[in-house]
Amino acid sequence: MMVEKQEGQRGTLPTGIFAATLTPETKDLAVDHVALADHCGWLLGNGCDGIAVFGTTGEATSFSAKERMDALETLVKNRIPANRLLVGTGCCALPDTVLLTRHAMDLGVGGVLVLPPFYYKGVDDNGVYDAYARVVQQLSDTRLEMYLYHFPQMTGVPLDRDLISRLTTAYPDTIVGIKDSGGDFGHMKMIRQSFPGLRVFPGTEIFLLDLLEMGGAGCISATINVTSRLAAEIHNRWQTDDVRELQQRLTLIRQTFDEFPLIAALKHVMAEHTGSDGWRNVRPPISPLDREQIQRLERALGSISFSVG
Amino acid sequence: MMVEKQEGQRGTLPTGIFAATLTPETKDLAVDHVALADHCGWLLGNGCDGIAVFGTTGEATSFSAKERMDALETLVKNRIPANRLLVGTGCCALPDTVLLTRHAMDLGVGGVLVLPPFYYKGVDDNGVYDAYARVVQQLSDTRLEMYLYHFPQMTGVPLDRDLISRLTTAYPDTIVGIKDSGGDFGHMKMIRQSFPGLRVFPGTEIFLLDLLEMGGAGCISATINVTSRLAAEIHNRWQTDDVRELQQRLTLIRQTFDEFPLIAALKHVMAEHTGSDGWRNVRPPISPLDREQIQRLERALGSISFSVG
Repeated sequence: MMVEKQEGQRGTLPTGIFAATLTPETKDLAVDHVALADHCGWLLGNGCDGIAVFGTTGEATSFSAKERMDALETLVKNRIPANRLLVGTGCCALPDTVLLTRHAMDLGVGGVLVLPPFYYKGVDDNGVYDAYARVVQQLSDTRLEMYLYHFPQMTGVPLDRDLISRLTTAYPDTIVGIKDSGGDFGHMKMIRQSFPGLRVFPGTEIFLLDLLEMGGAGCISATINVTSRLAAEIHNRWQTDDVRELQQRLTLIRQTFDEFPLIAALKHVMAEHTGSDGWRNVRPPISPLDREQIQRLERALGSISFSVG
Repeated sequence: MMVEKQEGQRGTLPTGIFAATLTPETKDLAVDHVALADHCGWLLGNGCDGIAVFGTTGEATSFSAKERMDALETLVKNRIPANRLLVGTGCCALPDTVLLTRHAMDLGVGGVLVLPPFYYKGVDDNGVYDAYARVVQQLSDTRLEMYLYHFPQMTGVPLDRDLISRLTTAYPDTIVGIKDSGGDFGHMKMIRQSFPGLRVFPGTEIFLLDLLEMGGAGCISATINVTSRLAAEIHNRWQTDDVRELQQRLTLIRQTFDEFPLIAALKHVMAEHTGSDGWRNVRPPISPLDREQIQRLERALGSISFSVG
């Protein structure tokens, strides 16, 4: 596990390779606690420095606050090290975000990943600033290490430079990083250059190497559920000559998955490779791949080699 | 109160004029239960046939499930007739939607207004269908009367003709209406013509008269918080000769508010007209109007007469 820190950056969470873990579900669509712990354990033993739990890939918003807290508690009881977990806690309702954040901290997690409230569109930066500021103020806890979650395609609420600047200026000891899932390398580069004290994780491994070369913190990605070993190899020897070739392989895998509904496609692959059909379960509004999509995915992946637990 | 039914339409809720009520808040941003009951009582005495509680205007998604249930219980205890309430219960997480829907029904509300899960974008209709179907199936209660909530600008999840058709075919006794907040008259007209058994409420009073003339059910709108008497007058005599003039006045008021952040602007007007500054409180990510917006709003409204309790 690399825990390479950029100058001036803080954070108890490791840097490096993070799977945004899928959340396996029983046939009644409850969290499958055993399968989740097994999968997280496998990931940590196969290239992942840490795991993002209940992010977009983990269908976080499709579970109630209680389900999310129960799952996290069970994960920690099942010996997944809490300090290697980055836990999604951002909800639309401030009391829910505060509840989940406090709960995660009390379990000793390495950090929390916080979406802005995502129902209202076209809100101004003052409101979004206030949403984050109130979480920090209500927690009022020096242990809190918060990662902002920029994903405008889902939230409709971009975190722009001015907003990040206001937040990191007001709470320099609390806001320690950002997950940038916007897919715009220019935005990641802007953050990296404007906020050298902030850990920047791209939300796709397509930019893993490019951002590492600029001092990026690693990568937190959905597809790392099935590419963790390859991603780790790139991260571990990113300064070697032939690493570009590995990055091209990793990029190709990601681009292939990007042509499909990502969560359902990854769960399908997990089911195929583990032999456990339960992996295909998803909560609405996500739906399983249909027959045509499965055939197309399998054709597309046929020529690509990657590893799954 | 008009309870005029279109042929073949069902629903215990009245039709007609509904304010999508604002949710007044204390200085700690808790629900101000007393002010909410007062406001709802005023609305029912001043033109409203019913009230939509915890819709978009009511900052529904900014409150936890418990806060929403507590507020609804208190409202009913404060003698607001439950059968005149349409209660927003649609959340991202299925268990939350089921919880809020069952709770509202147990209080005897006239109907529930259900958003599709709104975090994920680009989901296919099968997933959205399944999200609604599971709520109906898990409730498994013949008393359930559900109104679909079409608001693609906020949710990113449009409810199109095929989806509405599948849902009304599968659950003809449960899906009794739709609130169409998309602002596209063509979409409302399509629904009205394609689904004659469905009550159609536009989400803006701009289309009140046009849709009434096509057999629409009335209107559920944010601005009816301050225009209920005028809206009711149009609804009560929509077949008279001079009603177009009233509609033009109503349209002008709505268009004026549409140039401002709607919730904050309406709360500002409520504060001005009731003399209670607390009305200005909003939960993030909504933020209060700034000084420039207040001046502009007051200038714009200066020449328009409307009534507030």
